[in-house]
Amino acid sequence: MTRQMHLGLFLLGTGSHIAGWRMDGAIDSFQDIHAVCEVARIAERGKFDFIFMGDNLNADPGAHPSYTARLEPLTLLSAVAMATSHIGLAATVSTTYSDPFTVARAFASLDHISKGRAAWNAVTTAAPAAAANFGTLHPDHAKRYEIAGEFLDVVKGLWDCWADDAFPKDRASGLYIDPAKVKPLDHDGTHFKVKGPVNIGRAPQGHPIISQAGGSEPGQQLAARTADVVFAVVQDIDEARTGYKALKDRLPALGRKPEDVCVLPGVMPVVGRTDKEAREKLAALMAHVNSSNALGMLSERFGVDMSGYDLDGPIPEMPKADTYHSFTGVMLAKAKREGMTLRDLYNLVAAARGHWVLCGSAESVADTLQDWFETGAADGFNIMPAYLPDGLTDFVDLVVPILQQRGLYRQDYAGTTLRENLGLARPANPNFSAG
Amino acid sequence: MTRQMHLGLFLLGTGSHIAGWRMDGAIDSFQDIHAVCEVARIAERGKFDFIFMGDNLNADPGAHPSYTARLEPLTLLSAVAMATSHIGLAATVSTTYSDPFTVARAFASLDHISKGRAAWNAVTTAAPAAAANFGTLHPDHAKRYEIAGEFLDVVKGLWDCWADDAFPKDRASGLYIDPAKVKPLDHDGTHFKVKGPVNIGRAPQGHPIISQAGGSEPGQQLAARTADVVFAVVQDIDEARTGYKALKDRLPALGRKPEDVCVLPGVMPVVGRTDKEAREKLAALMAHVNSSNALGMLSERFGVDMSGYDLDGPIPEMPKADTYHSFTGVMLAKAKREGMTLRDLYNLVAAARGHWVLCGSAESVADTLQDWFETGAADGFNIMPAYLPDGLTDFVDLVVPILQQRGLYRQDYAGTTLRENLGLARPANPNFSAG
Repeated sequence: MTRQMHLGLFLLGTGSHIAGWRMDGAIDSFQDIHAVCEVARIAERGKFDFIFMGDNLNADPGAHPSYTARLEPLTLLSAVAMATSHIGLAATVSTTYSDPFTVARAFASLDHISKGRAAWNAVTTAAPAAAANFGTLHPDHAKRYEIAGEFLDVVKGLWDCWADDAFPKDRASGLYIDPAKVKPLDHDGTHFKVKGPVNIGRAPQGHPIISQAGGSEPGQQLAARTADVVFAVVQDIDEARTGYKALKDRLPALGRKPEDVCVLPGVMPVVGRTDKEAREKLAALMAHVNSSNALGMLSERFGVDMSGYDLDGPIPEMPKADTYHSFTGVMLAKAKREGMTLRDLYNLVAAARGHWVLCGSAESVADTLQDWFETGAADGFNIMPAYLPDGLTDFVDLVVPILQQRGLYRQDYAGTTLRENLGLARPANPNFSAG
Repeated sequence: MTRQMHLGLFLLGTGSHIAGWRMDGAIDSFQDIHAVCEVARIAERGKFDFIFMGDNLNADPGAHPSYTARLEPLTLLSAVAMATSHIGLAATVSTTYSDPFTVARAFASLDHISKGRAAWNAVTTAAPAAAANFGTLHPDHAKRYEIAGEFLDVVKGLWDCWADDAFPKDRASGLYIDPAKVKPLDHDGTHFKVKGPVNIGRAPQGHPIISQAGGSEPGQQLAARTADVVFAVVQDIDEARTGYKALKDRLPALGRKPEDVCVLPGVMPVVGRTDKEAREKLAALMAHVNSSNALGMLSERFGVDMSGYDLDGPIPEMPKADTYHSFTGVMLAKAKREGMTLRDLYNLVAAARGHWVLCGSAESVADTLQDWFETGAADGFNIMPAYLPDGLTDFVDLVVPILQQRGLYRQDYAGTTLRENLGLARPANPNFSAG
């Protein structure tokens, strides 16, 4: 079969643009399940592979007003599972502030509930402010990734504690479980000691899909070893191509093939019927940006106190913070290339929080996505609408049909599980022979 | 208004009877969301206050074959929220193996998703086997309750971090959050240190409903201080009356009124159109009980190794285990009163896991429930169908109409939230003045 794009919807509450909620008709609450379900159904109408719910573990009313009060991802996506039938459901859960038994169980449960549409976006939680909500200290970057690696191994191990056919449920004999088809995990590692088995049967997908977004060296290595989907924060095609190749190049040494991992750069499309209409939409969005807390937001995003700087002055030299490694690098590289002021940098963050903004007519947006897809920059895209639902509807109604006409994108879902739609094989269970 | 009964549905997978899944037409999987939703809709048709999902944190294929592989309660009930409109949704989550920030957030999320129908059944996790799945040691009974008390205070505190009207979402000015309407928690206690605020707005119910089932002295005291609903494990009306009065008597000293806490004994009703038909159903259930693992199951339930005893011999003297305090006491008191063998005891556990079994015609079942309700033994009942859906349908179709005709039970839901249906006031937020 011809290679086709995969599309995710990055669901960040009221939209990826900081002021998107102020647009006419825009969803203005991230606590309204019916609004989220409406958005999910639009994405499903657009045949998206999945919706992907970002997350934070601390409220930050100053820097992120319109999405700091939010539904929790697992409960949210379990509800969305009931309002949809084909679209994948990716929930962000931290490996630094969670427990592997609970995480393994919750995602297996979401996978059963959704009949094989669950994905776990495994993050290490960059923001140090989370620690204060968990009565602990924030581990440093290297330690967070060390923990994450073991955490992922434990979760995958728990997902393999039960054979697919562990439950004969024989009413005549009364045999419910075949005792030969369940095994403990008996993991005893550096950070975790977990006996198992988990108290839920093997998931419809075998393993729910794993996605990751870490851009640092340990983040990339962990993704190459454990992830099915990788999100990339990039600002231009050269960066995207370099990152794409670097990740794919890591795979053979880990016993994996390039097509085992799907690399999706994040992009905020602002689409019009013409370039002019698109530019006017973006201008309307930017006119809503309130820069009164710009320095506070930049301080939070870059992990450096910028409150003493001039918003219209140059970007100061900043120490490399322990947080947001790859994000910081991408943003600052672009800002330096283009001689930005701090206000320019703030507008860039406000627009799509550092992700690539693609503004133009549907035809030109499709052209650019095709170029990225066909020249080694992407296997598809993580679509970040500026505001909802219109920012998504524009993409689904105007861009998707063009991609479909060109044969670059599915006309309909090929499979029933997310794993099937991503074209990924169901993992065998190493603990039990097939059958 | 006349005092009316409240009814909960105790959802324990394939039913509360250990062999219920073997009955013709019975649901035989606790991993099938559509089966659970069907059951929830039957309970909603019966105007039940809530469905209540029990939980364990370890798989026990030997002792609990038909419900050891189960959906996780929060994801399960979030999905059920979308398939129902009025019934409350009570999820069991442990205070020993969870984190208060995550728990506060998840239940607030379920409350937003369900528009005010969430309840947290707070348990301390009796089974020591859970500890091995969390890389820790199982705290002793006293310590578990000490942790639970602080845990509940933290969660309730997090639920009050945001005023109800914290989000002006003013599109014109761009003011999304009123900064005067959000406060951190700054809890610094013996077991938890939690800064807050939580990253979700105040729940529709203010606080989701709290239920508890602890029968020990510290369990009863914690329930009297913090719970809205208390489940009781009892075997006869005298025990129920004594427990009911003891709990209500604790309330005034804690500044609470008797009607602030709803006491619901668990009961497994086996209902027929005649007493004879009901007895035949119970006999059919008991004929399916397989006693090959009886001693193992008793050992697990009582926390004492019984593998060396004769199943048809007398019940041995047992040390009081640190687990299942109240449950153990209730079961053993009944067993001694009635001169049971270990096999009799096993059958009692197999039937409803130690709860009261009420077998008879619909009329006689209604008579007994009315007697309990009107003579100080109960504010309603936690209904534990032996098997599903028929064990529930029998109750809803045969017993509920009788209770309604007698004015003992609602004809329809009075409110839209669980709290309203339970007749409980919405808690004021001590951090913010009203308005």
